[in-house]
Amino acid sequence: MPQINSARMLADLHALRQFGLYRTGVHRPTFSPQDVESRQWLATRFAEAGLDASIDGIGNVLGFDRSPGRKLLLGSHSETQPHAGWLDGAMGVIFGLEVARTLRQGIDVAAWADEEGHFGAFIGSRSFCGMLDEAEIDRLKYREDGTPLRAALARAGFAGRPRVAIDPARTRGYLEAHIEQGATLEDAGLRIGVVTAIVGSHRFRIVFEGVQNHAGTTRMAVRKDAGVALVRLASAIYDRFPVLAGERTVWTTGQITLDPGAPSIVPGGAEMLFQFRDTDPAMLARLTDELEALVARANQGPCRVTIAERGRSVPRAMDGGFQDAIERAAERHTPGLHLRMPSGAGHDAQVLAERVPAGMLFVPSIGGISHHYAEDTKEEDLVLGCQVLADAAADILGR
Amino acid sequence: MPQINSARMLADLHALRQFGLYRTGVHRPTFSPQDVESRQWLATRFAEAGLDASIDGIGNVLGFDRSPGRKLLLGSHSETQPHAGWLDGAMGVIFGLEVARTLRQGIDVAAWADEEGHFGAFIGSRSFCGMLDEAEIDRLKYREDGTPLRAALARAGFAGRPRVAIDPARTRGYLEAHIEQGATLEDAGLRIGVVTAIVGSHRFRIVFEGVQNHAGTTRMAVRKDAGVALVRLASAIYDRFPVLAGERTVWTTGQITLDPGAPSIVPGGAEMLFQFRDTDPAMLARLTDELEALVARANQGPCRVTIAERGRSVPRAMDGGFQDAIERAAERHTPGLHLRMPSGAGHDAQVLAERVPAGMLFVPSIGGISHHYAEDTKEEDLVLGCQVLADAAADILGR
Repeated sequence: MPQINSARMLADLHALRQFGLYRTGVHRPTFSPQDVESRQWLATRFAEAGLDASIDGIGNVLGFDRSPGRKLLLGSHSETQPHAGWLDGAMGVIFGLEVARTLRQGIDVAAWADEEGHFGAFIGSRSFCGMLDEAEIDRLKYREDGTPLRAALARAGFAGRPRVAIDPARTRGYLEAHIEQGATLEDAGLRIGVVTAIVGSHRFRIVFEGVQNHAGTTRMAVRKDAGVALVRLASAIYDRFPVLAGERTVWTTGQITLDPGAPSIVPGGAEMLFQFRDTDPAMLARLTDELEALVARANQGPCRVTIAERGRSVPRAMDGGFQDAIERAAERHTPGLHLRMPSGAGHDAQVLAERVPAGMLFVPSIGGISHHYAEDTKEEDLVLGCQVLADAAADILGR
Repeated sequence: MPQINSARMLADLHALRQFGLYRTGVHRPTFSPQDVESRQWLATRFAEAGLDASIDGIGNVLGFDRSPGRKLLLGSHSETQPHAGWLDGAMGVIFGLEVARTLRQGIDVAAWADEEGHFGAFIGSRSFCGMLDEAEIDRLKYREDGTPLRAALARAGFAGRPRVAIDPARTRGYLEAHIEQGATLEDAGLRIGVVTAIVGSHRFRIVFEGVQNHAGTTRMAVRKDAGVALVRLASAIYDRFPVLAGERTVWTTGQITLDPGAPSIVPGGAEMLFQFRDTDPAMLARLTDELEALVARANQGPCRVTIAERGRSVPRAMDGGFQDAIERAAERHTPGLHLRMPSGAGHDAQVLAERVPAGMLFVPSIGGISHHYAEDTKEEDLVLGCQVLADAAADILGR
């Protein structure tokens, strides 16, 4: 089987880390100066690997193999969350480049734009898959400061370029390597995760309307305390969801706000952002029904409770043949130390999976940490992950 | 009995409203230019009423009767909460001035500084009662922008002046009229509240420490979600407190914060500000014990929970004789339409009550609204309240 050049791969990974270096991590938001520079550097590296390299009109860095025949597309995204880790996204891009260099033929490579959602959601991979129209690009803004996406693309020098779209006749499938971002592999002493599916998520904003009052002079009996209504509903959710949920279902209240949020004022308003994720669409539907029933019951209390969906993604199964190929490669290099597992986080692979067969492999995250500058993975796990990806790619390409 | 001049009283009340007029209310934070101007205007009005008027080194406006014999001190505070009502505090000061003008002798008047706590807590009345030392004045800062109290006093022109202190040989007692700030009187169709006691409050900050994690990749079983710990404790408090509480006990969670407070991140930290109030010290002690027991139980969960007291005030009973005097006066002018009731809010009277007998009367708040520019009271209730205060003062002075 093909042998990767691990020193070359690690050198590129560390070189990419320099763009936006922050403590031991990286601060490289989409289309920041450091992100634009890193994309230009990646295009150069792709070209040096003999690929036909370009950056398209949405900022995707693409390296196309010039040899005839169908291609396997490898990649991930290259921007980061704010003050986050050096491997999230970057690793999958450099692994793709290294596998292209190792196999010489049959591999296309992509560094998608904005998987991290600074402007939208998966805009690079969705553009490539024909799922992002011009009207949405017109609308999107940088979440931090409201800069329009169009302005950011223009400043980056990418405006006016064609957006490159997938050609399913060319692309046999998509493989993405990523850090696990959880501690399942580490806790079990395992080294490779074979992703079975990427979870779908349902995301909600729940708003509570009561009456603001003085916390000393308003008797309990006449209060309409929006914060109490919120706590009661959240507690009911935490009671009911474990009963209904599957083994890997997760649910999270990430944000709670009381209005006005002063110590001596009975809150007249409150808001919570709530989400849940699962790989099973039926489970997501069941939990949505339960949530709506709990909100309806909460509405029988003194406050008005309304629920609005903020977004949803559907679960995406990874291709069975690709899973088998990754598993065979993992078994060859680290016998018994691999696991079939779902991905609890979203990835570009869920977008590509709507057009072509897709697969993903995970390497362990030290301490399960991600979206933080302390995020890291052992060097031997990086080398192993890239080698397993190369073997799986060769296997899928029939070499 | 003495007859107040209601037109004169209302004219002064509306004149004071002009300092910091905001919509139908007033924005007059302590030692803002409009507050300083209003204090100078009050001192002039006190002098015009024949009182020996001054503004002392903490900003209290004082009007001392020059006649011999013991005095009854009447007053309230004159600054407001931000963008708040025109009557809260101001009404009690103008009522005091009007009663001094009506009775001619035996009445001292005060407009205390900063009851609303822009810099500290009751600093004006505490200074007058010998309960505010120079070290605390050195320490206090404006909550909005950190301006030291010393600098604010200097800018107002009050720095370096002596602070006037109570002389119990002079002062027979203290009477304060105030808006109810609740809807108890209005809901029952009543017009005067005879305050029996001012509640004590215990105020806490409860901090939850968990582990921040990715909301997609971290299984429920291994999470240490600080937000869940908070919701569970708050819910337990809301279950237990009604069982233990008295009829007028109130408890409030005014502020909840999740850290980092992002929709897709399991909160690693959380904080709630919680308080309760009652007129019975034994009840306050019982609820404190229960809260500490609930926190101890919460600590058996996956997160660390710590509780810190942010402050407490002790309940203060109003003088029984003063209550009787107010009740007799109320019965004379509005038979049957008065109620003995505790004050759920704090007032300068609770400070004065530590030095001399004290009493309070309430007038109804329309809709129970306070700390909002919409705060208001019917004109006939203002006139009635001032007249009842005058009668009660005359009664106490033995006229």
